[in-house]
Amino acid sequence: MAKNYAIDQLKDALKRLPGVGPRTAGRMAFHLLERDRDGAKILADALQTAVTKVNNCSLCNNLCEQGVCAICQSGKRDRKLLCVVETPADLDTIEDAGAYTGFYFVLMGHLSPIEGIGPDQLGVEKLLQVIKEREVQEVILGTNLTVEGEATADYLYDTLQKTEVSVSRLARGVPSGGELEYMDANTLSQAFTDRRTLS
Amino acid sequence: MAKNYAIDQLKDALKRLPGVGPRTAGRMAFHLLERDRDGAKILADALQTAVTKVNNCSLCNNLCEQGVCAICQSGKRDRKLLCVVETPADLDTIEDAGAYTGFYFVLMGHLSPIEGIGPDQLGVEKLLQVIKEREVQEVILGTNLTVEGEATADYLYDTLQKTEVSVSRLARGVPSGGELEYMDANTLSQAFTDRRTLS
Repeated sequence: MAKNYAIDQLKDALKRLPGVGPRTAGRMAFHLLERDRDGAKILADALQTAVTKVNNCSLCNNLCEQGVCAICQSGKRDRKLLCVVETPADLDTIEDAGAYTGFYFVLMGHLSPIEGIGPDQLGVEKLLQVIKEREVQEVILGTNLTVEGEATADYLYDTLQKTEVSVSRLARGVPSGGELEYMDANTLSQAFTDRRTLS
Repeated sequence: MAKNYAIDQLKDALKRLPGVGPRTAGRMAFHLLERDRDGAKILADALQTAVTKVNNCSLCNNLCEQGVCAICQSGKRDRKLLCVVETPADLDTIEDAGAYTGFYFVLMGHLSPIEGIGPDQLGVEKLLQVIKEREVQEVILGTNLTVEGEATADYLYDTLQKTEVSVSRLARGVPSGGELEYMDANTLSQAFTDRRTLS
């Protein structure tokens, strides 16, 4: 029986997207081929263009289309602060929240002995250099509150202790809109330990 | 602030995939650009190839890379049976289940006055022609059990009454592995009405 190789290849390619399994890939492929062929062409072009144009900022590692990203180029941000995050997606989320006005350093991952990611792969040398050159006064450790993120934060804290910069970590506790009933024990313990005095 | 147009365009393009909203599109774009640039290139190529090569079978409308699809070309299938389905995805699911050995006719949609899809858009003329030319003896209405699918099946039933072909509809009832506790009233009523005598 003659197979439809192009469709199968498209399904396989779609499975490389995060969170897309065989069923979703099939649905996506059929949708594009039956109902949105223009969309398929636009997506193909956008992928090609992005892969060609998008690089990493030479200062902070964020994704950008210039040598240095818009945030690092900005004159309006607080030069004393540097927030260390795991990925460009984390940086984007913080920017969208509008909660921070300093600079960033993107590790492009977290410490993970299993995946072979040690301090060298995270560019800790480059981080120390940026802190020195930019005369940063406070480093905010903005890695995830996961096991790997915490281990990375611990390692960075130890390393930065040897410098003169002050180091802080994002606050832990119950998220906005969170209901205590659904909080895990770690979060609740942390929320009690770090409770704020109001008066 | 200099924007990253290529990333934004990629996110917008990814949103054309079914079930992908702004957040998922962002995560997919970051994944491809940070961790799987080869995947992005492969996906771009697969999209281009599929859009260029994949067409509709001239007999049954199924997606295929030849003028006539492998199923219509097969000499091993039951020529007396023709199953009418809404989409190539439905056809694929039936084929994967291995539950049917006849031929197909794909409507490429269902009756939907709101979307402006009437009998002409569904190619009912072509269906009647195929039934005649292939000397089909039984048409199985395999449209979905949704409101639109049922309306389409009703319309096709009325139309086919004027021909000599016998017409059947997929059985309705509780699905395999289904628990009565979670079935809706319609399904349960149908399961009682169409109950099978065992002895």
